[in-house]
Amino acid sequence: MKIDGKPYRTIWLAADGATVEVIDQTVLPHHFVVCKLKTMAEAEQAIRTMIVRGAPLIGAAAAYGMALAMAEDPSDAALGHAYKTLLTARPTAVNLRWALDDLRTLLSALPAARRREAAYGRAAAICDEDVDICRRIGEHGLAEIRRIVAGKPAGATINALTHCNAGWLATVDWGTALAPIYQAHNAGLPIHVWVDETRPRNQGASLTAWELGRHGVPHTVIVDNAGGHLMQHGMVDFCIVGTDRTTRRGDVCNKIGTYLKALAAHDNGVPFYVGLPYPTIDWTIEDGVRDIPIEKRDAVEVSRIAGRASAGEIVAVDLLPEGSATANYAFDVTPARLVTGLITERGVCAASEAGLLSLYPERARAA
Amino acid sequence: MKIDGKPYRTIWLAADGATVEVIDQTVLPHHFVVCKLKTMAEAEQAIRTMIVRGAPLIGAAAAYGMALAMAEDPSDAALGHAYKTLLTARPTAVNLRWALDDLRTLLSALPAARRREAAYGRAAAICDEDVDICRRIGEHGLAEIRRIVAGKPAGATINALTHCNAGWLATVDWGTALAPIYQAHNAGLPIHVWVDETRPRNQGASLTAWELGRHGVPHTVIVDNAGGHLMQHGMVDFCIVGTDRTTRRGDVCNKIGTYLKALAAHDNGVPFYVGLPYPTIDWTIEDGVRDIPIEKRDAVEVSRIAGRASAGEIVAVDLLPEGSATANYAFDVTPARLVTGLITERGVCAASEAGLLSLYPERARAA
Repeated sequence: MKIDGKPYRTIWLAADGATVEVIDQTVLPHHFVVCKLKTMAEAEQAIRTMIVRGAPLIGAAAAYGMALAMAEDPSDAALGHAYKTLLTARPTAVNLRWALDDLRTLLSALPAARRREAAYGRAAAICDEDVDICRRIGEHGLAEIRRIVAGKPAGATINALTHCNAGWLATVDWGTALAPIYQAHNAGLPIHVWVDETRPRNQGASLTAWELGRHGVPHTVIVDNAGGHLMQHGMVDFCIVGTDRTTRRGDVCNKIGTYLKALAAHDNGVPFYVGLPYPTIDWTIEDGVRDIPIEKRDAVEVSRIAGRASAGEIVAVDLLPEGSATANYAFDVTPARLVTGLITERGVCAASEAGLLSLYPERARAA
Repeated sequence: MKIDGKPYRTIWLAADGATVEVIDQTVLPHHFVVCKLKTMAEAEQAIRTMIVRGAPLIGAAAAYGMALAMAEDPSDAALGHAYKTLLTARPTAVNLRWALDDLRTLLSALPAARRREAAYGRAAAICDEDVDICRRIGEHGLAEIRRIVAGKPAGATINALTHCNAGWLATVDWGTALAPIYQAHNAGLPIHVWVDETRPRNQGASLTAWELGRHGVPHTVIVDNAGGHLMQHGMVDFCIVGTDRTTRRGDVCNKIGTYLKALAAHDNGVPFYVGLPYPTIDWTIEDGVRDIPIEKRDAVEVSRIAGRASAGEIVAVDLLPEGSATANYAFDVTPARLVTGLITERGVCAASEAGLLSLYPERARAA
């Protein structure tokens, strides 16, 4: 997507053909800084410190981390060391392991002299594949949006609501939940986005608002409490969110608070969509509320918040009285019954096993 | 309630019999400061700048403001001036006008020489009446809590969830929603409270957490997004909130986000209670979603937040990218169908016209 008119991805190869460049997401939305990654260790550090975040982007960064390792030293020992080092950068990112396994398999089979070029090539291909998946999610989602538009007066603003950040900053480009919104905006549809700030980490207020704003998409940031009121009053035409994990029968695990918005959408007849690439479907789990473990994160994410102080410096402040405990559940599960449709790179389906199998028939269980 | 073992109200007469003292709520939860109000102008300023807030407390502070005015000058002119000045301190507080009308009627009928004493006496009585109403809400709510306890294993923790601040800081003592919780705690029941932080003004994370903590009630602050997940997993035994306005048929207008919690409670079979004193019932309105206008407040409440920086000073920081708009709806309406019971000073009733009339038969419409 564009930043103030100039097209960007979240990760790219610099003009020297060796250095990897990424947008530093730790200082957004206050500063736009591009980080240069020149070594595997710098790539590992970028993943660990969340300079890059979002499952697809982490996978891409890990792939380029392997390429940087091979540029430094293409030996078997260096390959094994890079694999192990990058794998520990984030504890639970599925895409991280997937990308590393992919690169290791490819590179192990090659003589050392050919590994550097092959690794860079494969990393670039992983990026391009991710962009293609997201673009297709966007196209299928755009078709849904056009159906919603058809039910409104000509020229009326289409109001979407989203939670957290499932935009291009979480992927290589386009995003998942936001891909249909960018497609609609680029197609000239008058779309406006209500952006949940998404406490406690405020990915909506910082990342989603920033990327929509820089691309020129009209949007309004609201507190997470506000969406129900907006839906009661006809101010939301559809909701769309991403997902970290979707079960075989269509239960959707996503950032904490998603379930509350899905309840409000259901109560007010507002369509509730989930944009997802196929790797986030967990075919081994059915009941998401029962079987998906929910990560409890550091309490300080609730009790302390960082922002831009008056002189422009970033300052963290404590919000709670001393002595008050906090609990920080990172995700919740939205039952399939509250989801209008799952939008994948293959199309749109009902949030059910039958729906998912209509798009992924190869996943049907043997009779 | 108690602050670290010592009983307090939010407003009281100092030992000199003239000065009014209040807890400065603008610096909570970071500092505990008592403000002395020696003149009507200081009382007006305390209401205007939200040193005191909460409808019942505003009413009490306005009454004492009239007393301070009469101590300065008991003339008719001063009485009229004080009434007008105090009335403009907050735009829409029903209790403010009610208390001022009450005092003006009382004082106008008296000779100037008797006004000072009468005003102080009436202000004290208004405070005592508020305490009595809240105490009775607490007793009726406690009976509900005891019924919930009866359905749990002996000694098991009772988990309540509350939104915003409807505690003793919003009243003279006890609070409305929190009165049953204080009663339960004081009665030795093992009650624990999930406290919604309540963005954007964070009254939960600041005021509710502070007052529960100082009184010794176990509690845990959560982001507003978390309650649905907790209810899905049986971690909430009941919800209880306050209300700014309840309609004739039991629709409940309260701080933005209340509706989302009520939806989650309904979806998970968790009882959802509202604690309210009779003046907040608006007998003239039926459909709350349709007919209660929702205040839009300053966008800066969403985009900027204040907290305690590392040296202990209170610092405000900006959270949003420059150029992103915000919308700040202050309240939402929870339809009566989602409310398990209304707890008033007269007892507990269904959230319906029939329910309310069973407690307030004098409000029945003429046949």
